[in-house]
Amino acid sequence: MGRYELEYPKEATNLVKRHGERATYALEKIHSLINSSQLLHVSFNPPNSPFPVILPMIGQMGSFDRPSASLGDPLDLYIHGYVSSRMFNVGRTASSGESAEGMPVCVATSHVDGLVLALSAFNHSYNYRSAVLFGHATLVESHDEKMYAMELITDGVVPDRWRNSRQPPTGAEVQSTSILRIKIASGSAKFRDGGVIDDKHDLENEDALSSVWTGVVPVYSTMGKPIPGPYNRVELPKYASEFFDEFTTENREQALSAANKKD
Amino acid sequence: MGRYELEYPKEATNLVKRHGERATYALEKIHSLINSSQLLHVSFNPPNSPFPVILPMIGQMGSFDRPSASLGDPLDLYIHGYVSSRMFNVGRTASSGESAEGMPVCVATSHVDGLVLALSAFNHSYNYRSAVLFGHATLVESHDEKMYAMELITDGVVPDRWRNSRQPPTGAEVQSTSILRIKIASGSAKFRDGGVIDDKHDLENEDALSSVWTGVVPVYSTMGKPIPGPYNRVELPKYASEFFDEFTTENREQALSAANKKD
Repeated sequence: MGRYELEYPKEATNLVKRHGERATYALEKIHSLINSSQLLHVSFNPPNSPFPVILPMIGQMGSFDRPSASLGDPLDLYIHGYVSSRMFNVGRTASSGESAEGMPVCVATSHVDGLVLALSAFNHSYNYRSAVLFGHATLVESHDEKMYAMELITDGVVPDRWRNSRQPPTGAEVQSTSILRIKIASGSAKFRDGGVIDDKHDLENEDALSSVWTGVVPVYSTMGKPIPGPYNRVELPKYASEFFDEFTTENREQALSAANKKD
Repeated sequence: MGRYELEYPKEATNLVKRHGERATYALEKIHSLINSSQLLHVSFNPPNSPFPVILPMIGQMGSFDRPSASLGDPLDLYIHGYVSSRMFNVGRTASSGESAEGMPVCVATSHVDGLVLALSAFNHSYNYRSAVLFGHATLVESHDEKMYAMELITDGVVPDRWRNSRQPPTGAEVQSTSILRIKIASGSAKFRDGGVIDDKHDLENEDALSSVWTGVVPVYSTMGKPIPGPYNRVELPKYASEFFDEFTTENREQALSAANKKD
């Protein structure tokens, strides 16, 4: 409240060049988008390959040193993965080898909020929210930081799920789980909301106006009725049911408010 | 019918190492996933940057030389973008410079079909479908191929939308639109479906069984009621309304069939 909003500095790496007016560099916006994403796409360059690789992974922003930090503060991105995966092998080499900084990665997420259907195919668009982060990834070695990150990531899937699942973790579970910490170097986000926009010559084209449907179709991710598993004995708890309902409601409201936004 | 199913050869680049039993290399499966994705994440290495970059873009698989090719045939990926964007600048250099092969890219898409909530946090999972393609991107120069790709990509957003929008495109529209063609080098997809799976020791843990809800929560993308724009004069046409309904129905059925899949 009243505090300035921290931003990632605009540099060559994170600068949004096309439709710069749709960009934001505010930490809070970017971190919120990352944390509300069920999957993140993580890109890195494996050794001896001409191609960058993208893997879908689960992650959450957090601060082990200051767990009470807010979304608008400088945070690390914790990513869940497996020791045997390509990415972590690269990460291991990077953290033990010549590059103490870690493996350079790019992390991206995108939500489609609606189809924007214009008279001209070339004025079609999406309402969307996308974010990208750049940083250096290293394996988390400390037991306490690993536990912190595993709770953070589990609660990112369903809030409060960690302490409501079987506790404590077994030694084998902790042992076999790898967590990457990404130190953020920069980031940006890009948004589009609002209705259709056509060119003047199309708005005067009676043929087009009388034949082409124009408008916005809201798109949002929904959670269906939870399906209890074969050995479930428990009523669906409130922390879970409330979250499932909120998930759908918030996504729908986001899509509708984007569609109805007036410039 | 009866024909063998083409697969991308397994190589170091596209091999799925973790949970290899969930992988598929079938062109038809991979291409279908790409074509049903509203957004793709495209990763490439810009010059003079330590980080790979991911951009969200729109694209569709197709064959300009043989437009009747099916999804299981070898196809190119056509991506829509802007001349001024970083990616296309890199692509331009690549296609005019020393690397005639084009710019190496990785393209990824992921759909979450459900949350899989187990007794142990470590056995939590998603039902999901993800695909990745590797290839070389060059700018499409031929006018006819550009028109082919623009129709393909527009119809990927809403089938039949191209011929139902204002036609023909103006010279300026075609001029200002850039299309990348990605020649595919390899690819793979990864799926998870089915219910919760816990370890034996947890299935004998009365405490956990009597306190932790377990099951699957279906997740699917939905289209809401279309919102006509301020200058719309047309009833929502059938090609559009049918697609919007199908989109939600198919996604919901996919999520439910994944959740209810028995091993």
